Amino acid sequence: MIIREAKHDDWNLIWPIFREIVLEGQTYAYDPEITKGDAEKIWLADPRATFVAEDGGRILGTYYLKSNQAGPGGHVCNCGYMVSPKARGKGVASKLCEHSQSVALNLGYDAMQFNFVVASNTGAVRLWKKLGFEIVGTLPKAFKHPGQAYGDAFVMYKWLKS
Amino acid sequence: MIIREAKHDDWNLIWPIFREIVLEGQTYAYDPEITKGDAEKIWLADPRATFVAEDGGRILGTYYLKSNQAGPGGHVCNCGYMVSPKARGKGVASKLCEHSQSVALNLGYDAMQFNFVVASNTGAVRLWKKLGFEIVGTLPKAFKHPGQAYGDAFVMYKWLKS
Repeated sequence: MIIREAKHDDWNLIWPIFREIVLEGQTYAYDPEITKGDAEKIWLADPRATFVAEDGGRILGTYYLKSNQAGPGGHVCNCGYMVSPKARGKGVASKLCEHSQSVALNLGYDAMQFNFVVASNTGAVRLWKKLGFEIVGTLPKAFKHPGQAYGDAFVMYKWLKS
Repeated sequence: MIIREAKHDDWNLIWPIFREIVLEGQTYAYDPEITKGDAEKIWLADPRATFVAEDGGRILGTYYLKSNQAGPGGHVCNCGYMVSPKARGKGVASKLCEHSQSVALNLGYDAMQFNFVVASNTGAVRLWKKLGFEIVGTLPKAFKHPGQAYGDAFVMYKWLKS
């Protein structure tokens, strides 16, 4: 598995992963009906950088990195990660997150913030904690699960610069 | 003073307020060098709604309202408020915030979130608390003050729906 910058043409392979995860409706606050083009804008075109984990031409996962705020908040970046449902349980998310922390430092960021980690996504919460992120906020009932039940979301944060 | 929806032409009067506040560098995580056009996109064009507080043709303050997340997070809105430095201390921010909560409920939102309230902006923190917002998160060193000293920022949240 290699992690490399995503090219425009990769979107055809990233989109099915993005679509499946968003349709599950359990982890991301994106519109499940989002179009392929709008998703590309969010994930590939607008962020400062987008990477893919590739293995023999297959895309196992992906992440984007962007500034979380501008100006006096511009030293904190934000990332989002997606792993293909077919590639779960292989440590892909962990490798992507570690990679993103190196990239963030190289780009001059001091810290990384996740704005919206769904509290019921315990696997992700556990992994981010293991990788040094802390829960710094809890957004009560900020996520609506597919059955319409409200759940909390966490804000997670890690100071990267030594 | 009336609070009404902002029109495109209002930007010429909103922009000097926006510019002065962003140049102060104490409260908003916007690039101090932002152009008039980019600021208009952020404040007036992209949000779901933008309002101004007007008194005899003068703009005393303004706010925008937009969804804070999409899809399963789309029931929480986000607002930003600016009061003209010339109109401070007259309760304009308070009236704008109360107005925005009514508008949010009318638009079908359940809750309102402020993503980045600079902790040293104690006047704002006190006011939002008085108006029912809670500090639900603390972002350590997420704000760089003009002298480059780091300060915290708060995430504040209010459930609006009864």
